[in-house]
Amino acid sequence: MQIIDGKKVAAAIKAEIRAEVESFVAAGRRAPQLVAIIAGNDGASQTYVAGKEKACGECGFRSQVLRFADSLTEAELLAAIALLNADEEVDGFIVQLPLPRHINEQRIIEAIDPKKDVDGFHPVNAGRMAIGLPAYVSATPAGVKELLRRYEIATAGKHCVVLGRSNIVGRPVANLLSQKDAPGDCTVTICHSRTRNIKDICRSADIIIAALGQPEFLTADMVAHGAVVIDVGTTRVPAADAKSGFRLKGDVKFDEVAAKCSYITPVPGGVGPMTIVSLMKNTLKAYKKEVYP
Amino acid sequence: MQIIDGKKVAAAIKAEIRAEVESFVAAGRRAPQLVAIIAGNDGASQTYVAGKEKACGECGFRSQVLRFADSLTEAELLAAIALLNADEEVDGFIVQLPLPRHINEQRIIEAIDPKKDVDGFHPVNAGRMAIGLPAYVSATPAGVKELLRRYEIATAGKHCVVLGRSNIVGRPVANLLSQKDAPGDCTVTICHSRTRNIKDICRSADIIIAALGQPEFLTADMVAHGAVVIDVGTTRVPAADAKSGFRLKGDVKFDEVAAKCSYITPVPGGVGPMTIVSLMKNTLKAYKKEVYP
Repeated sequence: MQIIDGKKVAAAIKAEIRAEVESFVAAGRRAPQLVAIIAGNDGASQTYVAGKEKACGECGFRSQVLRFADSLTEAELLAAIALLNADEEVDGFIVQLPLPRHINEQRIIEAIDPKKDVDGFHPVNAGRMAIGLPAYVSATPAGVKELLRRYEIATAGKHCVVLGRSNIVGRPVANLLSQKDAPGDCTVTICHSRTRNIKDICRSADIIIAALGQPEFLTADMVAHGAVVIDVGTTRVPAADAKSGFRLKGDVKFDEVAAKCSYITPVPGGVGPMTIVSLMKNTLKAYKKEVYP
Repeated sequence: MQIIDGKKVAAAIKAEIRAEVESFVAAGRRAPQLVAIIAGNDGASQTYVAGKEKACGECGFRSQVLRFADSLTEAELLAAIALLNADEEVDGFIVQLPLPRHINEQRIIEAIDPKKDVDGFHPVNAGRMAIGLPAYVSATPAGVKELLRRYEIATAGKHCVVLGRSNIVGRPVANLLSQKDAPGDCTVTICHSRTRNIKDICRSADIIIAALGQPEFLTADMVAHGAVVIDVGTTRVPAADAKSGFRLKGDVKFDEVAAKCSYITPVPGGVGPMTIVSLMKNTLKAYKKEVYP
């Protein structure tokens, strides 16, 4: 059994990005720039955005955070987005979700120029990804693929079971892994709350991607010997003994499942660190105009 | 065993559309209009476009076919599309594929205003469909869903096996049937050329959607008793005794599979007649501005 070390892979990728950025800067070009918009004071959102800023620093990117009050109107937010769309020194930007309730998230997402939509949430990017065209793939699905690639895990012809059908994880992961591009070419089964016999389906899997958001859902009796288990779940579970008052729990009962696996990701330290790195990779792609030449 | 009669359903839907159009016209509004662009002399394309014109007539739509020579340039085609995008009396239009080889099909598809893209091939529509937003769903996946709906076939929680991962059938069908909207909520497995144990997977299916384009691929030993089988395959197979010189063959070995099924579609007369009807429904939606208000 091998533990997939997302932290280590993420550090390696950030170092690769930094080296590339340094070569651009040495050649007299400006550094890539990522901008984040945040509205309100949601604690988790603040933490995520801080993590993204830190990663930008590590990659040699310029970064900027535009902070707005909870009372920000939709029109004001759309105006800020229009400025970023037009700013040639901004390669990509993200609008941290969730937004205050009076703002229509879908309208905001669709106002972002797809060329700068490094979160990959715009329908144009979702659609291009679904039909196998170059696209910004959203952070978590891209991170899952990158882990499979870096650990050289065989995927072609394997049965991959995806638990969860969310638009930001389950569905895009299922689409990506059923496509021909390596890692991919899997036979993919997508399971969700209405699925029957989920235990049997999981037991038939060579690869399980767990993205339900149900702590410790996947137990040892649901996993075949030698399976690859990628745990995308990160639920904050109250923990009196933790300094923060909570602990992150994955969708996998790690202690009992790990022994049966060929590869498994821990939580934290598995998929989590890869998500921010995927955003950095998308920003570099935007800078290099790789997706939309 | 019940044979799903696509011809009958298609006729019923066309009559429903016609009644609705007549009520609009009686109220003084113009009729919906669909335009088709065709370049070159491909026989199958001519037949498809003629079928679409005929269906427009049956639905009370205006229709127009813009015919170009094989030598049409990409610039000329883009200019024609720009005119149709701007024409307020054109609700939707399609560019019949395949196009002459010197024309970039993807560039043409992306030039169509998503609001008029009643074929549902533009990445915006593919993406909106994948993430469950209102969208023009392409003709064949929409036709499959409509047959399940009209025959009131239970889908929630069922295991649906999709054979084929094409962008125009397999992948969108898999995405649609795994979504919550009825008919849907299936556990979906998407299979393709690299899938192993495809027989076992098919035998575990409550519903099989065959869209591989391999005549008579699905045999009786691959189907569980009581399964629902939807055959999307339509391959022209040479037949000396047929007037046209060929016969349409589905992906299902109908004679032996039918006896085991609860429901099955024939070829021809199953999914086929539904595809043109889906295009008519999308045109009516465009006219009513249902997808993009």
